[in-house]
Amino acid sequence: MSTEVNHCSAHHVVIIGGGFGGLYAAHHLRKAPVKVTLVDKRNFHLFQPLLYQVATGGLSPGDISSPLRAVLAPNKNTKVLMAEVSDLDPQQQTIKFKDTELAYDTLIIATGVSHHYFGKDQWAEKAPGLKTVEDALEIRRRIFFAFEAAEKETDPEKRRAWLTFVLVGGGPTGVELAGTLAELAYSTLKNDFRDIDTSETKILLLEGMERVLPPYPPELSAKAKASLEGLGVTVETSSLVTDIEDNLVSIRQGDQVKKISAQTILWAAGMKASKMGRVLSERTGVELDRAGRVIVQPDLSIAKYPNIFVVGDLANFPHQDENGKPLPGVAPVAMQEAKYVAKLVNKQLRGETLPPFHYSDYGSLAVIGRHAAVVDLGFVKFSGFPAWFAWIFIHIFFLIEFDNKLLVLIQWGWNYFTRKRGARLITNQEEQPNLGVEQKSNPPTPVKV
Amino acid sequence: MSTEVNHCSAHHVVIIGGGFGGLYAAHHLRKAPVKVTLVDKRNFHLFQPLLYQVATGGLSPGDISSPLRAVLAPNKNTKVLMAEVSDLDPQQQTIKFKDTELAYDTLIIATGVSHHYFGKDQWAEKAPGLKTVEDALEIRRRIFFAFEAAEKETDPEKRRAWLTFVLVGGGPTGVELAGTLAELAYSTLKNDFRDIDTSETKILLLEGMERVLPPYPPELSAKAKASLEGLGVTVETSSLVTDIEDNLVSIRQGDQVKKISAQTILWAAGMKASKMGRVLSERTGVELDRAGRVIVQPDLSIAKYPNIFVVGDLANFPHQDENGKPLPGVAPVAMQEAKYVAKLVNKQLRGETLPPFHYSDYGSLAVIGRHAAVVDLGFVKFSGFPAWFAWIFIHIFFLIEFDNKLLVLIQWGWNYFTRKRGARLITNQEEQPNLGVEQKSNPPTPVKV
Repeated sequence: MSTEVNHCSAHHVVIIGGGFGGLYAAHHLRKAPVKVTLVDKRNFHLFQPLLYQVATGGLSPGDISSPLRAVLAPNKNTKVLMAEVSDLDPQQQTIKFKDTELAYDTLIIATGVSHHYFGKDQWAEKAPGLKTVEDALEIRRRIFFAFEAAEKETDPEKRRAWLTFVLVGGGPTGVELAGTLAELAYSTLKNDFRDIDTSETKILLLEGMERVLPPYPPELSAKAKASLEGLGVTVETSSLVTDIEDNLVSIRQGDQVKKISAQTILWAAGMKASKMGRVLSERTGVELDRAGRVIVQPDLSIAKYPNIFVVGDLANFPHQDENGKPLPGVAPVAMQEAKYVAKLVNKQLRGETLPPFHYSDYGSLAVIGRHAAVVDLGFVKFSGFPAWFAWIFIHIFFLIEFDNKLLVLIQWGWNYFTRKRGARLITNQEEQPNLGVEQKSNPPTPVKV
Repeated sequence: MSTEVNHCSAHHVVIIGGGFGGLYAAHHLRKAPVKVTLVDKRNFHLFQPLLYQVATGGLSPGDISSPLRAVLAPNKNTKVLMAEVSDLDPQQQTIKFKDTELAYDTLIIATGVSHHYFGKDQWAEKAPGLKTVEDALEIRRRIFFAFEAAEKETDPEKRRAWLTFVLVGGGPTGVELAGTLAELAYSTLKNDFRDIDTSETKILLLEGMERVLPPYPPELSAKAKASLEGLGVTVETSSLVTDIEDNLVSIRQGDQVKKISAQTILWAAGMKASKMGRVLSERTGVELDRAGRVIVQPDLSIAKYPNIFVVGDLANFPHQDENGKPLPGVAPVAMQEAKYVAKLVNKQLRGETLPPFHYSDYGSLAVIGRHAAVVDLGFVKFSGFPAWFAWIFIHIFFLIEFDNKLLVLIQWGWNYFTRKRGARLITNQEEQPNLGVEQKSNPPTPVKV
């Protein structure tokens, strides 16, 4: 039951960002004696862990998105505002839009991160990353267009370049993309072409560290690598990308430098804080880490401003253990942080407080392919089919809306048994696609607010 | 069972266009002793009758699209080529692409139509039409953005303009869009906003003729109008649009001229043949009608070139009855024409022939809203819930792939019982959307080849 709130005088909590952090903060404040405004520049929540499925034609964007208004409609104390925040004034306690502003009593910032090209922003166009729906559709376009171009190409060398896919970054996104691409090339598309043999497709996963899934225990990294290789992916670790020219990737492996000719290069490495981190730092003096994330206090507020909180990927929470390593940028962290802040706001309104935030790590998991995944629950580590099953179950469980759960389950069941992928549309192309010069769908500095 | 075809010497049928006409032509040639190449500039077949559901957030593009390669993969005599045809040479029997060409023995052109702004191409940007996936996503973006903008707008007059939707054209597309918009505004979104009352939305359907659904029997037009008005749509017939300026529609009704202030204007009137019609006329001298459609012979070939056929919306077939009225541009016509041509090609290879094409009209149907439609099967006309049920059944039946049928059925069941529409993403927007100047997703001269 929601409490009636006097909207004129009630304590006003403004949340910026409708991802896991923002949405869960609003959720846990739904019965608090506050009014809540959730601000996002998009009108939907995106279930990012499944975005790679959109990029590979297995799901449609609508399947993994939920309209923020529909999700929050039952929360009578909550308003949704579709707008882009441009600035904030912590003294006046306002956030600013293009031509209006909004006053807050408590501010929760959950604007996340985007990809980072290590200072080489010119790579963005050549190797798109995967953070937004538009990114996923652009990657989907490039993947399926590459096979179409290969089918038409008569020069064997150029054809080989169209059938070569390079994935930069061996974290969960890179591993998931590589595994799904392998299924696509070696199973789904096998009978669809007449002039090319899609089983000649080369999929190369590059990781700078000495193993894939670096934050996972070494034995799971090894299992993931073995699974990927079993699917046909070439995994190269300790490999640093030194340059990306048009259709050419330069890699340094120890003292060796090699160049790989590939028409499709996808970026799954590097992470950069969203613009709000910098704005916040300029206005409040709060310290940022090297990636631009906001160093937060043990209660997730920022130094000197106890009524401004940062949660989710944008927060650097270094207090968990002795070595000060920040918490990873994953959904469970964002969700627990959001819940903590909502609870703390509630307590503070009654003149109480809470002990510092503590993250409970229930484990990590990453999917590799059609029926392989790795799961690390701390007390137990497993891989292969049971891990894949657990991965599916957990992901469907956390999809926000029931109809999405149902649709995704059916699509997956269908994709699994038929090895089909129905959503492989090439959309938003130019009249004659020219992949080198595409600009619009691949903005060099995506900012998620 | 497919017949083995000698790909070097076999009779080569080239089909341009992967809509209903092209796809069914390929389908009916699958066992013929010919090799078939289907050329389309897109890699998917689009089920256009349900495109309005994408435009209104009920379905995702992937739900109503099928990869052409996947659909045609079992047809061993068929190749798919994703390419845009720029020209043809009927003497040399080749079609031309940007830098290659392809020889044919028989050519089947099925490139369809796009919308026509009666010479006012500047209207295209202000009032987008609905033919492609990109069109549907652009309309979806405008519809949902309008409600977001209304929620933020404080000036009552401007807010009214954001909540006014004008649909130009009372054919099936206009009627279906109007009915679905009414459901959206008066049911689906009812509880999603805090500062606006979406039931104040005004939906205006304009038709130049004296009744909606002009090709249908008058009693069904009257029922459709009554159903729409029951849903809350204002239907104005005998109303001609004389001008569209930014957010202002000028209408002439008899001697009266009135202006309506609306932020969202959608185009469901006018039809223009695709570019291939003009190219064909220039190269072969074939006659075109005023809309640019190709006047075909009684066997669907073109004058002087018995090995070039035109089927579907691009064909003007005036031989059906005495008054020479062309067949309507609907899927059943395209499918029957495609089947006829496939059969004729087969016969001709054996030195035989066929009597002229004859269209069997099994009726027309249009959906109006959540459970209303009109159906005219010739021997029986009905409307309301049974018509709606028939409409759903027939549309799902004709969806190309089984997994699409299943997904669409589930989505519809879900949408019907919950009145939800999950796929209402606002995508591809600029940083700060400015609807007046959007260019990219709304090309002024869409050409479907």
